[in-house]
Amino acid sequence: MSGNKIGKMFNVTTFGSSHGIALGAVVDGCPAGLEISNTDIQSELNNRRPGTSQITTSRKEKDEVKILSGLFRGKTDGTPIVAVVFNREMDSSAYENLRNNPRPGHGDYTWQARYGNYDYRGGGRGSGRTTIGQVIGGAVAKKVLDTLDIKVISHVTQVGIVRANKMEPDEIELNVKMNSVRCADPEAAPRMEALILHVKEQGESVGGVVETIVLNAPAGLGEPVFEKLDADIAGVLMGIGSVKGVEIGLGFKAAEIKGSQMNDEFYMDDQIIKTITNHAGGILGGISTGMPIIARMAVKPTPSISKMQKTVDLESMEDAEIIISGRHDPCICPRITTVAEASVSIVIADHLIRSGFINPVKL
Amino acid sequence: MSGNKIGKMFNVTTFGSSHGIALGAVVDGCPAGLEISNTDIQSELNNRRPGTSQITTSRKEKDEVKILSGLFRGKTDGTPIVAVVFNREMDSSAYENLRNNPRPGHGDYTWQARYGNYDYRGGGRGSGRTTIGQVIGGAVAKKVLDTLDIKVISHVTQVGIVRANKMEPDEIELNVKMNSVRCADPEAAPRMEALILHVKEQGESVGGVVETIVLNAPAGLGEPVFEKLDADIAGVLMGIGSVKGVEIGLGFKAAEIKGSQMNDEFYMDDQIIKTITNHAGGILGGISTGMPIIARMAVKPTPSISKMQKTVDLESMEDAEIIISGRHDPCICPRITTVAEASVSIVIADHLIRSGFINPVKL
Amino acid sequence: MSGNKIGKMFNVTTFGSSHGIALGAVVDGCPAGLEISNTDIQSELNNRRPGTSQITTSRKEKDEVKILSGLFRGKTDGTPIVAVVFNREMDSSAYENLRNNPRPGHGDYTWQARYGNYDYRGGGRGSGRTTIGQVIGGAVAKKVLDTLDIKVISHVTQVGIVRANKMEPDEIELNVKMNSVRCADPEAAPRMEALILHVKEQGESVGGVVETIVLNAPAGLGEPVFEKLDADIAGVLMGIGSVKGVEIGLGFKAAEIKGSQMNDEFYMDDQIIKTITNHAGGILGGISTGMPIIARMAVKPTPSISKMQKTVDLESMEDAEIIISGRHDPCICPRITTVAEASVSIVIADHLIRSGFINPVKL
Amino acid sequence: MSGNKIGKMFNVTTFGSSHGIALGAVVDGCPAGLEISNTDIQSELNNRRPGTSQITTSRKEKDEVKILSGLFRGKTDGTPIVAVVFNREMDSSAYENLRNNPRPGHGDYTWQARYGNYDYRGGGRGSGRTTIGQVIGGAVAKKVLDTLDIKVISHVTQVGIVRANKMEPDEIELNVKMNSVRCADPEAAPRMEALILHVKEQGESVGGVVETIVLNAPAGLGEPVFEKLDADIAGVLMGIGSVKGVEIGLGFKAAEIKGSQMNDEFYMDDQIIKTITNHAGGILGGISTGMPIIARMAVKPTPSISKMQKTVDLESMEDAEIIISGRHDPCICPRITTVAEASVSIVIADHLIRSGFINPVKL
Repeated sequence: MSGNKIGKMFNVTTFGSSHGIALGAVVDGCPAGLEISNTDIQSELNNRRPGTSQITTSRKEKDEVKILSGLFRGKTDGTPIVAVVFNREMDSSAYENLRNNPRPGHGDYTWQARYGNYDYRGGGRGSGRTTIGQVIGGAVAKKVLDTLDIKVISHVTQVGIVRANKMEPDEIELNVKMNSVRCADPEAAPRMEALILHVKEQGESVGGVVETIVLNAPAGLGEPVFEKLDADIAGVLMGIGSVKGVEIGLGFKAAEIKGSQMNDEFYMDDQIIKTITNHAGGILGGISTGMPIIARMAVKPTPSISKMQKTVDLESMEDAEIIISGRHDPCICPRITTVAEASVSIVIADHLIRSGFINPVKL
Repeated sequence: MSGNKIGKMFNVTTFGSSHGIALGAVVDGCPAGLEISNTDIQSELNNRRPGTSQITTSRKEKDEVKILSGLFRGKTDGTPIVAVVFNREMDSSAYENLRNNPRPGHGDYTWQARYGNYDYRGGGRGSGRTTIGQVIGGAVAKKVLDTLDIKVISHVTQVGIVRANKMEPDEIELNVKMNSVRCADPEAAPRMEALILHVKEQGESVGGVVETIVLNAPAGLGEPVFEKLDADIAGVLMGIGSVKGVEIGLGFKAAEIKGSQMNDEFYMDDQIIKTITNHAGGILGGISTGMPIIARMAVKPTPSISKMQKTVDLESMEDAEIIISGRHDPCICPRITTVAEASVSIVIADHLIRSGFINPVKL
Repeated sequence: MSGNKIGKMFNVTTFGSSHGIALGAVVDGCPAGLEISNTDIQSELNNRRPGTSQITTSRKEKDEVKILSGLFRGKTDGTPIVAVVFNREMDSSAYENLRNNPRPGHGDYTWQARYGNYDYRGGGRGSGRTTIGQVIGGAVAKKVLDTLDIKVISHVTQVGIVRANKMEPDEIELNVKMNSVRCADPEAAPRMEALILHVKEQGESVGGVVETIVLNAPAGLGEPVFEKLDADIAGVLMGIGSVKGVEIGLGFKAAEIKGSQMNDEFYMDDQIIKTITNHAGGILGGISTGMPIIARMAVKPTPSISKMQKTVDLESMEDAEIIISGRHDPCICPRITTVAEASVSIVIADHLIRSGFINPVKL
Repeated sequence: MSGNKIGKMFNVTTFGSSHGIALGAVVDGCPAGLEISNTDIQSELNNRRPGTSQITTSRKEKDEVKILSGLFRGKTDGTPIVAVVFNREMDSSAYENLRNNPRPGHGDYTWQARYGNYDYRGGGRGSGRTTIGQVIGGAVAKKVLDTLDIKVISHVTQVGIVRANKMEPDEIELNVKMNSVRCADPEAAPRMEALILHVKEQGESVGGVVETIVLNAPAGLGEPVFEKLDADIAGVLMGIGSVKGVEIGLGFKAAEIKGSQMNDEFYMDDQIIKTITNHAGGILGGISTGMPIIARMAVKPTPSISKMQKTVDLESMEDAEIIISGRHDPCICPRITTVAEASVSIVIADHLIRSGFINPVKL
């Protein structure tokens, strides 16, 4: 029990670090009989992979997945699915100067405080590269969701002060793959890309907002008091590195308004109970309403910037300075879309089983 | 496993509902040897209790705690601590008209979708009254935190569009008890109270923002990948009824700025590593830095309003209308401060044990 | 997490101690819609209750159950079911001489080693009286099992050197209530009773064997590698105080024989796959076969005997002697039958839900 | 949550199957700072490995371990330790005739009942080969135990009707490696070997008893009510394939005797509290006494025998016959010693952390 597992019935344990031999995940509790292929996982990993455009880090990794167990004749057999990605590019000399100087905004110092050591080579297990595990788990979860036609999609709604216009779910799904910033608003996307390139030139980074939407989730998902669907979603999203805030539905806007402005009134739509508005973001009392589930997360600017910063020297215990070189994403939002989709997909798959919508043993 | 438990090593299982016989909690995993009294728990329950001012519901409950087990000669003995509050006031006739008409903004409909029934009498277990269990657990957690001089304080920073000025921790602790709205800013507090009374007269409700601060938490608390300290805090705060958003440190502001504006630089302060700023809200890489931990939550306006609203009839499956009578808080923020403190205290106590700062068996 | 919970999906947390205010259980994860009454629980508690015959302790307790939450109009509503029994008879003066002298064969010393204190008054939470919690949980579990017509029955097969003859399940069910020793063999029962009364007169105690049988469990229950059905049954049975051994099917007899003598051959019986023999005790590869599940447990003689015994003084840390007075069961086997039934029923109910035979949320 | 994990704080998730690509384990919750090498794990795997003597299966596997993550400069870094063994020898044609005919005594049929399919190639994940995962986890656990000088040793005490004489712990440790049957009694060992070779010639198999001893465990290990040390040990041992019974201390002998014969009296030995006898097997009230912990397990004869057996055809659902060819251990006891050591080591490591004897985060 040291925080490397997500989910209860359908659960994903991840492992591996930035400069170790391999990263990967154990997906346990997936029902037998689900068709899944290398490609299903690889395509999600490709979405997460860096080096695919000018606005991401130039670290080149093929991130080829290898499934070690859990499949029998192309289907899950009910046993743990293990998939790994071996690290290729292993030059860690660029990180040598970080050995005793924790980087501001990174987990270096807190890992040192906790474990008595930290892997200065690219963040070790604290690296964003560990999200490979989540993405593997999310790829399997998505296949579970497919059986009920549930979709999870993510897009970037804000980069710095550039905000996208509100779009409809089908537009989002269509547009989000048409630009490298993964913004569904074709008007805002180029301005976001320009801003990212601008801060990159400055040796700077910039934050943003990512939104994740779940379509077709049935009403009735989520536990009642502590493991509410929104609580679990908030937990996994806040657990993604660089995320500093999470909203469901109207989020912080709800703080400003009155009850009559917030409440979503019910109506019958062809024998199905729906709400006229969806300010609640698809969740009431911690349980899904059947309307789209909508979550947004605030992403901080990547802490690795090339400007000189103040730090301390852990050996001499004196003030020090640091300049970070190496390759980094100037804005991590586009790549976080994949991780957010994976994380939310795992939560939904878990609750589908926990709530009896999917048999826990076999499809 | 149905979502009534919070915490892993130090954990709290809550039970009971709005109009049942009793509500309470089982606190398990509390080390032996901790002095604790009825008063320690009762005083927290009194903070949560309604009916203490004009701006809360007029439901009168004494909420007297009774400890059933777990103590031996005034100290915890390592066995489960069970404390209950018996419900007194049981008139549920006011709720009869809700029997088949789910209230907009409430969990009535989603509980129906999930369980096939819902307790229309004041929300049943979905009622805010179930937070009695959390507050009992939080009271025990606070005693654990006391042993390391760790404090958890909460205050209201926004009601509707009225925002409090930023205050220092010691001011907050001092001021927050001086007004019924639990706002630390003496200038904003009366304006918040006026706004709450105003919406109450309108038969309306209003949202707000509550901030929770943890002081003196050691560096090194929190798991690395999924059960990060911020993830766990976000999970429990989002799990409180009416919360629609959670921020750590700068939160959504972080989305707008650059890396150099966000990063907290390190410095040595008398052999202790600190950060000059605390934009991270005391958590980096999911692990505490030793700086104050700062979380904020967006609270939606109470869904119970006395205006006519559209709903459906679950029996006839046709559109319907509803007018909610009964007693309700026009703004739940002041009372949520106590629940937020309790929830975060439980998370911190749990991680203190999980991280080896406190012996899991005996003090 | 301190070992007061049993089960995962369907789980039971017990609390309370021998001389505290109350004992009881929280049953969580029970599906909504299950009819259950006070009587269902009370009748199981009555089976466990002492003072009902000459061969049990003379401690008189009414053990009246009070349900605090979890029911709505006579049915489970999906929220935690909490039931308690208040302790009545509270004279603990008989235990004063045990304050610093741990009783041989009891948990006094090990609790002291672990928690730094022990409740010398009748064993505190280490007392057999804490099994009230299990029996409450088991009563609810049995109602879950009823929905699939699954029965769990226990009987005493050995007391000291007196062994019962092998009986058929329906005989066991019928006969076991016809004598105070709960032995299904009408020939052995009186000899067992005589032996118990004999050792009681000597100020002694005696051990025995209890067998628990599960009828009508479907094939397919149990996890594959670590949470096998037999592993979980062995865990809960060994966890009952005084149990020193657990067998499934042939048990230790299997060590002596050859493969051809052990293997249960398959055959078709009216389109159902059965085994000719049932040496495996209904479990293969950790998963139920559909044949009766058969477990036996070795119960040690009650450690409380009235003979002088050597012990140590925890204050002076010197050798000491102890004579235990008070009321004790000379043979705990008859009362363990109820606890074993409850424990196994909880395991089966949990696996029925985990394996998808019963919906986790509502019936 | 599907039963592939053992342990709570220190936990081991295993994966992989008999004829898949790889088998292995994720060891999570191991404190940082523990020195561990490939050799530490490989030497345990070599103990488990078949093909090393005449009395085991002739399947040849090198079982070379590869550590994928969790180490940094030769020490654990607090992140999940993942180690795998790739399967080499993959001819599964010998199993083709088992495709629809479940083998008596094996898990084939119950896996089919549960998952709708089973891996007929050598038992799939139900194969004894999956214990590679446990052994990897046990190797890491043993390194944790080393820091407190705790030893776990296993030996064979019975094969069929051949019983070993009782030996002292240091004799056991010394003698057990001197014969292929892993029996500490030099007089019984050759007779056991002869018996095994004899049944092998007959195309038969034979059962036996394995004993596992824990030396130097401190008093105070184990939870009080449900996750007792003996309950957890019984759970993991009963969870090993082919185990049908578990005893602690006197075990089933305790059923026959009186309290005065069973109770272990206390005495002071150089300021340490000990018991004169150790009939309890080192555990009282579920918590360790500080005396040696002694567990025994009954191992059934290997179900794979070369005699014709009755079975059913899963396709035609008619009676059928089966003759099993392939390579099998005629007596699995010698190889189970390694798995039992691993399993118990994991339980002890877990409880050492849960009970506060070892810091959960770093050594």
